[in-house]
This record gives sequence, structure tokens and C-alpha cells, in this order.
Amino acid sequence: MMLERYGHGGDLITAAETYGYAKAQFIDFSSNMNPWGSPSCVEKILTDTWQELVHYPDPAVRKLRQTISEFYHVPIECILVGNGAAELIDLTIRAIDPKVTALARPCFSEYEEAISKINRKIFDIYLNEEHQFELQESDIQYAANHCDLFFLGHPNNPTGRLISQSVLQLLLNTNQIVVLDEAFMDFVPEENQVSLMNQAYVNKNLFVIRSMTKFFAIPGIRLGFMIAHPEWIERVKSLQVQWSVNAMAQSIGTSVLQDYPFIEKTKNWLIQERLWFTHQLSNLGLKVYPSDTNYLLIQLPPFNDVKQLQEKLAQRGVLVRDASLFKGLNSAFCRIAIRLREQNERFISEIRQVLI
Amino acid sequence: MMLERYGHGGDLITAAETYGYAKAQFIDFSSNMNPWGSPSCVEKILTDTWQELVHYPDPAVRKLRQTISEFYHVPIECILVGNGAAELIDLTIRAIDPKVTALARPCFSEYEEAISKINRKIFDIYLNEEHQFELQESDIQYAANHCDLFFLGHPNNPTGRLISQSVLQLLLNTNQIVVLDEAFMDFVPEENQVSLMNQAYVNKNLFVIRSMTKFFAIPGIRLGFMIAHPEWIERVKSLQVQWSVNAMAQSIGTSVLQDYPFIEKTKNWLIQERLWFTHQLSNLGLKVYPSDTNYLLIQLPPFNDVKQLQEKLAQRGVLVRDASLFKGLNSAFCRIAIRLREQNERFISEIRQVLI
Repeated sequence: MMLERYGHGGDLITAAETYGYAKAQFIDFSSNMNPWGSPSCVEKILTDTWQELVHYPDPAVRKLRQTISEFYHVPIECILVGNGAAELIDLTIRAIDPKVTALARPCFSEYEEAISKINRKIFDIYLNEEHQFELQESDIQYAANHCDLFFLGHPNNPTGRLISQSVLQLLLNTNQIVVLDEAFMDFVPEENQVSLMNQAYVNKNLFVIRSMTKFFAIPGIRLGFMIAHPEWIERVKSLQVQWSVNAMAQSIGTSVLQDYPFIEKTKNWLIQERLWFTHQLSNLGLKVYPSDTNYLLIQLPPFNDVKQLQEKLAQRGVLVRDASLFKGLNSAFCRIAIRLREQNERFISEIRQVLI
Repeated sequence: MMLERYGHGGDLITAAETYGYAKAQFIDFSSNMNPWGSPSCVEKILTDTWQELVHYPDPAVRKLRQTISEFYHVPIECILVGNGAAELIDLTIRAIDPKVTALARPCFSEYEEAISKINRKIFDIYLNEEHQFELQESDIQYAANHCDLFFLGHPNNPTGRLISQSVLQLLLNTNQIVVLDEAFMDFVPEENQVSLMNQAYVNKNLFVIRSMTKFFAIPGIRLGFMIAHPEWIERVKSLQVQWSVNAMAQSIGTSVLQDYPFIEKTKNWLIQERLWFTHQLSNLGLKVYPSDTNYLLIQLPPFNDVKQLQEKLAQRGVLVRDASLFKGLNSAFCRIAIRLREQNERFISEIRQVLI
């Protein structure tokens, strides 16, 4: 029984059906949500503004785009909000309509999904374990001759790595279009320095896609946005379905961006906890790849198989992501979210008992 | 200043910006929502289950599809839930990929939007005012030679008319694919007899699209579903973006279908109120076309122009839909929702003062 029946982690319904626990009894390391849960304003919005559902959502998402514009210092006409980053990935691919898209394996499966929906080709760049799965300049130089679009995670999922500044520079010099999926960028402490958001609205060859649901732990409501040149925003928007972003998502998005204490707390937690968790996992003989964000790619010790590990951990109420399902990885790889200390301790104690 | 800046009625933000009232001060006859508001369970769900937003929505929408299956006696594998009917219109057009689609003018603008996104042709059937805008057998016979898809409102928007049983029978005999948009069918008292939902899951040439947001007055959360043969459902779903239907929409949809008193109340109100409102409007010299659902297409008396009427009514806090924006109608036509008695009385008293 595969927990990723629908292609992703975080499917607690399938886990509950399979292992006989209630959904709430699992500790979920398989989806990369902020373990602090959602900011308190989310409850307030849902209880205060439910009457608003009687009206259509603002088709132009005016208030939230204004808030994003102020928060990130990006012109409002360069912002398009979507029904989750997943919708924006799909729309961007359809708008660009690339002949051949370069993907850096392993990577998030929705890029390939979107490309296959329009029957276009993929050029696979295989990230090298020896380079700790970090994208290399030589990868770009070679791929640039074989593709007209680069679609890359920054940081990448499941590897957790940012793209280095030199590789980014090279990418922007190829004259191919570059889409950066910065879904986990808001967890990166040096976000302001490394995000390419503030270049995307002036460079017609660069798109940046962001999610708001990981950092603010609101994947249930669906919310993402993208930054691109206004001409591209118009083109992508012309493919978007009317009222795609529901009213609750618009209200919640506007509020959470103003919760500075929550943002601060999350960033501070991650710096410390990633260090501690990495250390603990390494002590168990697991190889932990360096991560710039809130999840870790790990390699299991010899003779361990991730499917068996996932099964044994799930029986103990702990969910992990089978990373062998990512093209470019095998059954030695597992992806885990970084959670709060107590949960991470529980993880260490459970995995210790199931490792061979 | 056009109130339909984004192509539809119900844009209270634009109305508020234009006329200087607060959104809540308008009485909105421009969008066709149930005037009873949303069922009380909506508030309860939002306040009780906001914590659920920390999880991804069920990607397979299992519980809501089960509820729809039981409510409408339709097999679960024939049901696809969407981010509003608007998403399903778009996906259906992309999945069918018709060469030429026949539309019956005037009709809902999203059909044309979806077709133009894939650069396909439209064959216009002009509904005849002399036939009170009712689709005729001769329309179908002629159009069937020029199209491979019929995309029709049942009942149609803005005319409010059902397609007659004889025309439906003819449509199903053409061997062309037929998509029926039954977004307002749940308001029709004889829904069970006239909906083609229970034929759509056995007939590979028939799709039925439903909205849940008009009857239950929840357009802000986005929710619709479609019924088709399982092979078509698979095909349409393969184009849908992952987690397209947010978690709140799934919970709300499941609950509202169990609120029988609300359903009963709405159906009873409409039968009586439509009769009364039609009568009152006719007394003012307006031509009211017979409607099978919760809105009325009206023709203004000579020398009245709908844009001026809309402007004057908006200044008085009353919003109507400029029906001249529908291809096939001119500036003599206006669409209004049927609301509760007190609001309808207010409408009568306001329009009386602005008619020429």
C-alpha cells in the first residue's frame, strides 16, 4: 500500500484508511508544513468573515495583491495570485508552451505533470549525489543547448538546496526562459538576499512562483502567487479560470503577511532545529544532505529500503515521504519535514527502532 | 463606468469604488444568488474546522463525492468536483477539444472564454425573441451540421429557460457531444424530472455541469461538480490541477446537501416569488420573459437604455446586470435576480422612479 497514492505526501486520509489510526494521531513528516500550525488570525478570519462567502471572490484579488506588493516591494501589476502554487505551475507551462523543458532530477512532480498535460518534452538534468544534489554550472551549460525552458526549484524539493548565485547568473545569461519555484523560499533565513523575486518583474525571461501554504500552514485553503513581467502576467491570467482564488484564501493571505511575530518565530525555530535534527539523524548513521529550508533529504544506511521503512514508521503513527518516487533517487532515499523538538525527538526514537 | 468590469455581475468591490456606498449597502440583483443566504451549517463548519486547513485537501474529494452520489443517485466514479463550475467548463472544453462549438446566444460568457483559450471556433445559434428565447428544434437540426459540440445552459443564463424535452431528445440523437450547464437547475422545482444528470453517466456524448454556489449562496468558496461517463471523468480529471478543490469547499458541500429544510424553503419561496415579481414588473410596462429559475430577463420599455438604467439604480444602491453585454441582446435588456419580498418591493419602487 503506497501512501503517495495521489502523487504526494500529506495524504492523511489514505494513511488513516491504511493503518487504522485517526488522522490526528499521525505525526506527519511527509508534507513540509510549518509545524507551528497556522497563525491565529486564520481562526479569526474564518469565524468573523464567513458571511462574505455569499459574495463572489474579488476576481482581480485587489487587496491581497496590494498586500503582497507592499510586503515584497514588487509592483502590483507583476503579481498574479493562484489557487495554490500548483495552479500557477500549470498556467505558466501552458502560457510559455515550451518545446523542451529542462528539469533537475530529483524535483517536485507537478512540473512534469504540467508539461505532460500539453504533451511537451522534458530534458532531464540528473543532480549528482557526489555534489550533494546541487545544480552545477556544467549542468546548465550542457542543458541550455537542448531546452528552451528551465523549470527549477529554488530551493529544490526534495533536496532542500538553493541554486548557487553563480549558477543563477549563468541561467539568466542563457537567454532561455527560467521559472523558479520558490515555494519554500519563505523558510530560508536569507530570503531577501537569495530570492529572485525582485528581478522577475523586470526580466522577461524570468518567472518566480511562490506558495503561501507551507510557511503559513494553510494548504487546505490553496494559495500561491507569481511574479513576472506584466506582459507575462496578462498572458498567464488570460488562461486562468474566473474566480480561481476563493474569498477565504484572499482574506487569509492578506492577514498572515501582517503577522510578523509568527514569521519571526518560524525563522528562528528553523535555524536551530535544523542543526539539531541533522545532528541527531547523522548520529543514527543516516546521511543527511545539507538543506536550506524546512525539510531534509536523507539516505538510509545499507540494507534499508524506504518502502519498508515508511510502512514500519506508519504503523507507529509516523509518516515520511518515500523519496524513491522522485525520478533520480532510489529506495535508499527518504524525505522528512523538520518539526518541533518534541516531535523530532519522537521521530528519532521511532526510526532508531526500525532501522536495520 | 461599467459594473461588469470583470465580465460578470456581483462585483460589489467595483460597485463600492464607483458609487461610494459600502459593499453591504447595495441590494444586489446583478448576481443570481439564493437571497436566503447560505445555510447555517456554513458558519458552523468554518468555526469548527478551521484547524483542518493545516492539511492538504483530500485530492480525491472522497467524502463530498460520496455525498453527491447518494443525494443524486449517481455512481461515484461518474462525479468530478471542481473549483467552481467555471473550472469544470474550462476543463471540459479542453478535454473534448471540439473543432466547432455551438452556443445558443445569449448565454453565459464563460463558454466562449473557455473556447477562445484553446483557439477553437464557435457556431452561434441566435435565440429568437419571438420564441421568447427558447431553443427550437430547427436550431438544432441546422447547427448539428456545423458543429461537433453543443454547449448549452439548462436552464440558460440570462434567459432563464429550460431546454424543452423534444429539443433535448433531438440533441441526444445528433451524435454530437452535448454539454449541459445545469448551474441553476437546483432552483427548478421539477429538477428531478428535467435534469439530465441521470443520463450523463451512461451516455458518452453527454456531460452535465452543476454549480453548488448559487443555490447555497457560497460563491466565495468555489464549488461545482460534473457528471459524465467514467472514461470522460478520468480524462477531464487528468487536466485538473492537484488539490484544486479547497478543504473548506469540500466540507461545506458535504454539509449543505444534508440541509433539507433549507432546500425546501428555497424551492417554495421561488415558486411564489417569481409569480409575484413577474406580475409587478409587468405592471410597470416591462416585458418579462418566462423563467424556469431564480432570475428574470426583462426588456425595458421604448427609449430606456440599460446602461443608463444600471447607473441610475446603482446610485440608489440597487445593482442589476447589463444584459446588453451578452452577445445576442441589445441595450433594451436587463437581467435581475429574484430576491426576498421586501427587497423585490424596494426594486419595484426604485425602478419605477428611473424608468422613462
